[in-house]
Amino acid sequence: MKEIRGAEVAKALKAQMTEDIAALGGYIPQLVIVRVGERPDDISYEKGAAKRALAMGLRCTSFVFDAEISHEEFVMEFQKINKDPEVDGILMLRPLPKQINEKEIERLIDPGKDIDCIGPMNLARVFAGETDAYAPCTAEAVMEMLKYEGIDLKGKRVTIVGRSLVVGKPLAMLMLGQHATVTICHTRTADFQGTCHNAEILVAAAGKAKMIKKEHVADGAIVIDVGINLDEEGNLCGDVDYEEVKKTAGIVTPVPGGVGSVTTLVLLKHLIQAAKQKRR
Amino acid sequence: MKEIRGAEVAKALKAQMTEDIAALGGYIPQLVIVRVGERPDDISYEKGAAKRALAMGLRCTSFVFDAEISHEEFVMEFQKINKDPEVDGILMLRPLPKQINEKEIERLIDPGKDIDCIGPMNLARVFAGETDAYAPCTAEAVMEMLKYEGIDLKGKRVTIVGRSLVVGKPLAMLMLGQHATVTICHTRTADFQGTCHNAEILVAAAGKAKMIKKEHVADGAIVIDVGINLDEEGNLCGDVDYEEVKKTAGIVTPVPGGVGSVTTLVLLKHLIQAAKQKRR
Repeated sequence: MKEIRGAEVAKALKAQMTEDIAALGGYIPQLVIVRVGERPDDISYEKGAAKRALAMGLRCTSFVFDAEISHEEFVMEFQKINKDPEVDGILMLRPLPKQINEKEIERLIDPGKDIDCIGPMNLARVFAGETDAYAPCTAEAVMEMLKYEGIDLKGKRVTIVGRSLVVGKPLAMLMLGQHATVTICHTRTADFQGTCHNAEILVAAAGKAKMIKKEHVADGAIVIDVGINLDEEGNLCGDVDYEEVKKTAGIVTPVPGGVGSVTTLVLLKHLIQAAKQKRR
Repeated sequence: MKEIRGAEVAKALKAQMTEDIAALGGYIPQLVIVRVGERPDDISYEKGAAKRALAMGLRCTSFVFDAEISHEEFVMEFQKINKDPEVDGILMLRPLPKQINEKEIERLIDPGKDIDCIGPMNLARVFAGETDAYAPCTAEAVMEMLKYEGIDLKGKRVTIVGRSLVVGKPLAMLMLGQHATVTICHTRTADFQGTCHNAEILVAAAGKAKMIKKEHVADGAIVIDVGINLDEEGNLCGDVDYEEVKKTAGIVTPVPGGVGSVTTLVLLKHLIQAAKQKRR
């Protein structure tokens, strides 16, 4: 069994991105992170993204709003950021508090700054298979893992577990764009085990700790674990039962240290693209 | 073998729609058909839609432009229609001539009038699984056929042949919304026969005459034929080799007389919805 480690994929991506930054002729792209409230998950993701952005020599600014901010006031503040010509890309941490109409904010975001694919324009472009759209970062991180490993998706049987708009569905579109045969399954799937076992490439994006066992995985299959969960002992784990699956799978991505380590880099890749686009 | 005939589905839809029109309190929704040039396919589709609209007591107006119209002029004319408060829904026949930037027109269309789902706002909503979005009419017509027949999609293995943005992809989203397990396959699929044969419900939307033979269809499977092609003798036929498949399939939809007979009714259903939405 082979592992695809996120750190290696990240290293390759960084090398390319460093070149892309240099090609901007001295301009330093700015990422803005918008956070409402003090949810620990948000803060942790924000810290990670900021650290990586700064380490690459990019600008990163956080705007933090009170959890009680009204919808109207948030719209006003969001639009200031959205329209600021110095802002190249926006990462808005979700979900927003209930008093804010999140759908409205998603429709407001400038498609050129929507590097995390929350707005309808980018979603539609991903749906349409436009390869220069900013796809949701986790979905694209999966593609980067496979690309790094040199895996040709053409004609391959891919099963994606999970049908969310941040991973399962957009990933299905990216995979179709590479000519894979894509099956999307979920909690309601009748023959779940068989559907997973049929896959040459199995992507677990269901958000349920260790749900993929060895009986779900064909001998030699490639298993990409998108899940980030806590197990019974409170340790970080994926949707894949790694210890079980590693015995039969051909390739597995670990959690932690897998797809998650590539996700924020994809975000920064989009940021650099957005800056390049703007300056054209 | 049983057939689902489009005419029966259409009849049931019409009954519901007649009630919906009555509920508009005397307001008569207006469909506008936009055609550029004199392509026979376009004219035939336009005639069919207009005839059906008028038969249901709806208003229908065609705007026909010269095939040589410039992009700028077409945008101006299109916006007049798009912004006219008396227009409830727009059917724009595509593809447009090459001098017109079709993508730009798609982005211009008022999402509230985009009853054929050409614009990014509706596409994004279909992608997101919002059930009140105007889905592409052919994809939704397939769902109406299955609904009429009382087929519960939950957990069912569905294979869709074809990955277009007008049928295959949106249909996959609609099917996922009904909790089906969905596989999308296409010309590059390695085990095409097996992928089709595995399906409890097989939807052929590839646009290739009689490509689905009996070896592609499991005993008792439901086969929905979206194709509209001409066979060697110049007769209308579907993507399914009907004479072969009918021996083993459980249910088949014929061509002509199947999905195609429901498509324009779905368009008119959307038109009535759009008028209702506008008057709220």
